[in-house]
Formats: sequence, structure tokens, C-alpha cells
Amino acid sequence: MVGEDLVPQKVEAILNPGRMLSDGIPYPDFEAARALDDLSAWLPFWADTAERYQSLGLAALDAGDRVSGGEWLWHSSLSWHYGQLMWFHEPERREHGQRKKVELYELAAPHLVVPAERVEVDFESTVIPGYLRIPDGPGPHPCAVLIGGLESTKEESYHFEALCHRRGVATLAFDGPGQGEMFFDVKLCGDFHRYTSAVLDCVSARPELDSDRIGVLGRSLGGYYAMQSAALDKRLKACVAWGGFFDMSDFDGMPAHTRAGFVYVSGLEDYQEGRAYLQDTFDLSRTIGELSCPTLLVQGFHDPIFPPHQTELLRAGLAGNPQAEIIFELDGDHCCHNMGPVVRPRMADYLARVLRE
Amino acid sequence: MVGEDLVPQKVEAILNPGRMLSDGIPYPDFEAARALDDLSAWLPFWADTAERYQSLGLAALDAGDRVSGGEWLWHSSLSWHYGQLMWFHEPERREHGQRKKVELYELAAPHLVVPAERVEVDFESTVIPGYLRIPDGPGPHPCAVLIGGLESTKEESYHFEALCHRRGVATLAFDGPGQGEMFFDVKLCGDFHRYTSAVLDCVSARPELDSDRIGVLGRSLGGYYAMQSAALDKRLKACVAWGGFFDMSDFDGMPAHTRAGFVYVSGLEDYQEGRAYLQDTFDLSRTIGELSCPTLLVQGFHDPIFPPHQTELLRAGLAGNPQAEIIFELDGDHCCHNMGPVVRPRMADYLARVLRE
Repeated sequence: MVGEDLVPQKVEAILNPGRMLSDGIPYPDFEAARALDDLSAWLPFWADTAERYQSLGLAALDAGDRVSGGEWLWHSSLSWHYGQLMWFHEPERREHGQRKKVELYELAAPHLVVPAERVEVDFESTVIPGYLRIPDGPGPHPCAVLIGGLESTKEESYHFEALCHRRGVATLAFDGPGQGEMFFDVKLCGDFHRYTSAVLDCVSARPELDSDRIGVLGRSLGGYYAMQSAALDKRLKACVAWGGFFDMSDFDGMPAHTRAGFVYVSGLEDYQEGRAYLQDTFDLSRTIGELSCPTLLVQGFHDPIFPPHQTELLRAGLAGNPQAEIIFELDGDHCCHNMGPVVRPRMADYLARVLRE
Repeated sequence: MVGEDLVPQKVEAILNPGRMLSDGIPYPDFEAARALDDLSAWLPFWADTAERYQSLGLAALDAGDRVSGGEWLWHSSLSWHYGQLMWFHEPERREHGQRKKVELYELAAPHLVVPAERVEVDFESTVIPGYLRIPDGPGPHPCAVLIGGLESTKEESYHFEALCHRRGVATLAFDGPGQGEMFFDVKLCGDFHRYTSAVLDCVSARPELDSDRIGVLGRSLGGYYAMQSAALDKRLKACVAWGGFFDMSDFDGMPAHTRAGFVYVSGLEDYQEGRAYLQDTFDLSRTIGELSCPTLLVQGFHDPIFPPHQTELLRAGLAGNPQAEIIFELDGDHCCHNMGPVVRPRMADYLARVLRE
């Protein structure tokens, strides 16, 4: 249980218009959530919304309307996702939301356009869960491996995946240590890249995919993991860090509930202990010199989580990589979510372009 | 020039969140437009936004990023569309916006996923412009002919078209009398159905399309045209009226600038003359008895333009058609735009289901 001072106090602390709408929350739902007076109404509102979409989705499947069935079930999954977002102060309710999100996405998966195939990669004593989606058209296809962040999981990248598919790029989104389904088994840890490599073993074995044209994109905390993974596994031919960071030297300046979340997904209860663990765990200086593939970073000047200082560190760390570029948006917030319609297609273009060459 | 009392006074008079966001206006642009203090800033704001997307789109095409190129050029087109929306009080600026919308869509068309092919149907002394989009997959495909309304044109249905394509249905969106490009040549008139029939001649001749599986969907004023067209041309095997009406008996209760718009696209300058013309022109009692194909109406109880009285008239008029159904949403506004994520997939499902059988 996190300290009271780290619990979000208002709906505005959780509400993120650019992110939610770009990731697929319908505007009417967003507006209704924004109008909630009290944060205590947040999770129940999204649970109700999720149940409504679940009913719509199941009814559509019954009627033979598979496309709507899949999309409404996915909307249900995404409603659960945003319902439990940043809900670290009530672990049981958060866990329930996480499990419902997973359950509903799994129901949606075969009906999505492009269908999503659940992949389970055996790794040491656990299983890494992911979803592989391969667009129509002649293969073998290039593939983008997608990594979520502190609070984004494989179910949330549906819209971004569509951007890849439209460009002929397959996607494999997975949950790693501390994320989504895997959190229950493995907490946040310093060797996330080993899990990426296990996923790459799986991807490389698929005849529909071109094992010489695999890239990685990670979002927020996942941006760190993407850079670390591409530095240490040379099978990755392109790397995109979407709102990443270099180290935890700016930890104390993060929003309170973000700090609480980092400690929570580390599986620790004591804040000071968690802070020390995180600062010890994350330090890209150890690996960034090995990051030699084409690399794109997208950073926002107004990022309250990973401030411009982190971008400076990244820029210095990447000085030896002539194929690295940084888009530093002066109007951008965290992950430039407020500029989604511009930066998201750019990242998909980058992956498609590099993996096409 | 319309009377001063019919000119919109505030941004809120034009701003339509559900419609704009469902039709593809990015949320950041919508928020910026909503924050405008003064209606006089509306058109310049959208012109700037359109120019920004135009630059992005052209640069993307130069870089070989065709998918982004097409989408950003379409965003530019849509920005012009909403910039000139309801701008009947300054015809020159409106006309400029209309022409820019058309020009930008035409640039985008070949790069869209699914590509849009411009179709020009010779008809009497004019040309009916449209865009045909045929999804991947084995044909011949069923096709939905899409009709806009008072202020929606063939360039605005891009997102709705995607719903059809995902369900295996091709689309042909066109401008008829009083709409978009055709307005300059032919004003609003009572025999819109003859233009639909000319478009059907064209559709029926295309080998990629199945001429026995053509449906029609019309939006708002276009809902009237769709019903009229399906009543009088039996080649149409399915009809969807998305927020339509029966007659102009409720004209005086419409929002002022909507009334001004109806008079404007009729090519008339005198309000009373226009009112009389419209009330004489629109009367579905003449044809609704012939509407015998499967027909779906989507109506909103809170529609300020076509109030529930119109739905009552439509229900009575359709009593003799056992294949007609009305979805009457008690929470819905005009076209149920505030419920887009639910009603739009339903209409696409309906077309796909009826045209599949």
C-alpha cells in the first residue's frame, strides 16, 4: 500500500485527453469521465462503460456482426484498462481491472481486423504473453515488437498497431516484467531485455515474418526497455523510444502517483526502498554505447515525468550513433500524447521505412 | 446574403464534438477550436490548421511515406471542410473553403488506404463528382452509395467508409444537387433521386462491384434523399437514413443558421421564398409508399433539426414496409452524433448484413 500523499486526489490527475483519445477511448466516454466530480466515481464509471461495450460486443457476435463484435469487446477491454489506471492505492480493485482487461481483449482478439493471435513464450519459470497481428498482403512481413510502459500494456496499442499494419508491418505487443499480466508473476527488473530476446526467438521462428526485418518500439518506461533491448540484441534492426528516459536522476520531480506506480510495479512497499531500487536499476549509460541500429527518439519538452534533462542525457549517450535521431517537440507533453495525430504516424513511418530498406 | 439574425453568433453554434471527432478531426485541433473566443477566429484557425497538414502531407509524400501523406492531406481537406461549415453569411470565403477541401482531397485520394478513385458521371448538362473506394479481397464487392447532407459532402465520409471497407463493402460517395462541388452548378432540388440513379448506372457498370448488391446510406438531409432514391430506383437493395426527416413542417423550429443554410443551398436569397420552396420540395408522402427494400432509420430524440415529430411521420409512412426498422435513440442528438461509436458501426453492420444475403 502506497502512502496517502502518493494517491491521486482528483480526476484530472488521471485524465489524459491526448493519450486516451489517441489510444481509442471514444469521445463521449471521455467527456463523461471528465465530468465526474469525484475520483471515487472513476473506476465504477469505467466498469459500467466496459460492461455496456461487453454486452454490445457479445450481441454483435451473436448476430454475426464480427467486426463490431471484436471492436466493442476491445472497447470493453480498454475501458477496464483506463478504469484501473494509476489505481495503485487499491491493489485488489486494480488487479480486478487488469484481469478483466485481459479477459475482454482475449475475447475480442480473433475478431479484430487484423486478427490478433495470442502468443505465449515460455521463458525460465514463467510465460511471456503477447499478441501477434499480421496484416494482409504477401509476406514475409517486417515486424515491430511493441513494449508498453509503467501503465500501458499490450492491449492498449491497438490503434498504434493499425498504423503499422496499414504500412505493411506486422506487430507483436507483449507484457514484460512489471507490466499487465506479467506483473503477477515477475515485477519490474533490470534485465527486461532478456524477455525481449525471448520474444524475438519466437518472432524469428515464424515463417510469416522476416527475421531480418524486426524492429522494436517502446513507450514511456518502455522506451528505456526498447533502447536497452536493441543495444543488447542485434537482431533488432530499428529502435523507437517514444517518450523514454536515461536514468532515474529526476525521480523526485515526477508526479506523486507516478512515483507510487514505479514503486508498486517493482513489488516493493517501502517508498524509500523503492526509490533506491529504481535509481539503481535504471542507468542507460551501461548499454547505450551498444545501441548502433537506426534509432528514433520522440521526446516532449513539457514532459512532467521525463523532463528535458533526460533528453539531454539521451542525446549525449547517442552521440556515437550516426543513425540516431531525436524529435524533440517543443509543444509536446509526455510521449507527445497531445500531438498524437502528428507524432504517431511519424513513428510508424520510421519503422516501415527502416525495415523496408 | 442571409439576414443577420440567421448568422451564427458563437463558436458553440458551429462546434459539434460528436460529429467532428467521429468524422476524423483530431482531438488537439478540436480542443484548440473550442477554445477560440470569437467566431471570427474560426475560419482562419482551420485555414492555418489545414495548411499545416498540407505541408506535413506533401513532405511525407516527398519522403516516400505515402500512408501518412494521404492521411495528412485528407486532414487538411477536413480542416477546410469544418472551417467553411455553416459559413453561409460570407459566400466568398465559404466557396474558397469548399474548393480547397476538394483540391486537398483530390491530392490525398490515390494515397489513402483504401485508395479513392475519382469518378465523374456525366448527367444532362453537368457532371456528378464522386469517389469510389474498393477494399482488398476477392470481388465483386457489394457497394454502399453514400449521400451527404446540407453540410456534409463526399470528403467527410472517410471514416464511415472505413467501417464499410472493414466489412467488405465498397463505397461510392458523391455530391448531388446543392452539395459540395455540385452546388456551384446545380442547387438543391426535388429530384435528387435522378442523380443517384445516374450514379447507379456508373456503379452497375463496374466489374469490381456486384450490381445486385448495391445499397444507399444518406446522412441528415441525405437521409431524405436516400429514402427517396431507394423508393424510386429498385436497383438499391438496402437503404439507411441516418438522421433523416419526412417533410419541412418543422422548419420554423430549426436552428437559425441551419434554416439559413437550407435557403442558401437552394440558391435563393429571400428567406420567405426559400422557406416556401423547401416546404414545397420536401414531402416524402409522395414516395415513401414505394420504399420496399430493407430500410434502417437512425433517429435521435434530442435532434434539434429534425425533432421527434419527424420520426413519427417516418414511422407512419413506413408502416407498410415489413423490412423497415427504426433505431430511435432516446439519448441521441442530430444523427446521434453524440453516440457515434455505437450507431455508426451498427449502420455499417446493417449494410454489410443486408448486402451479404
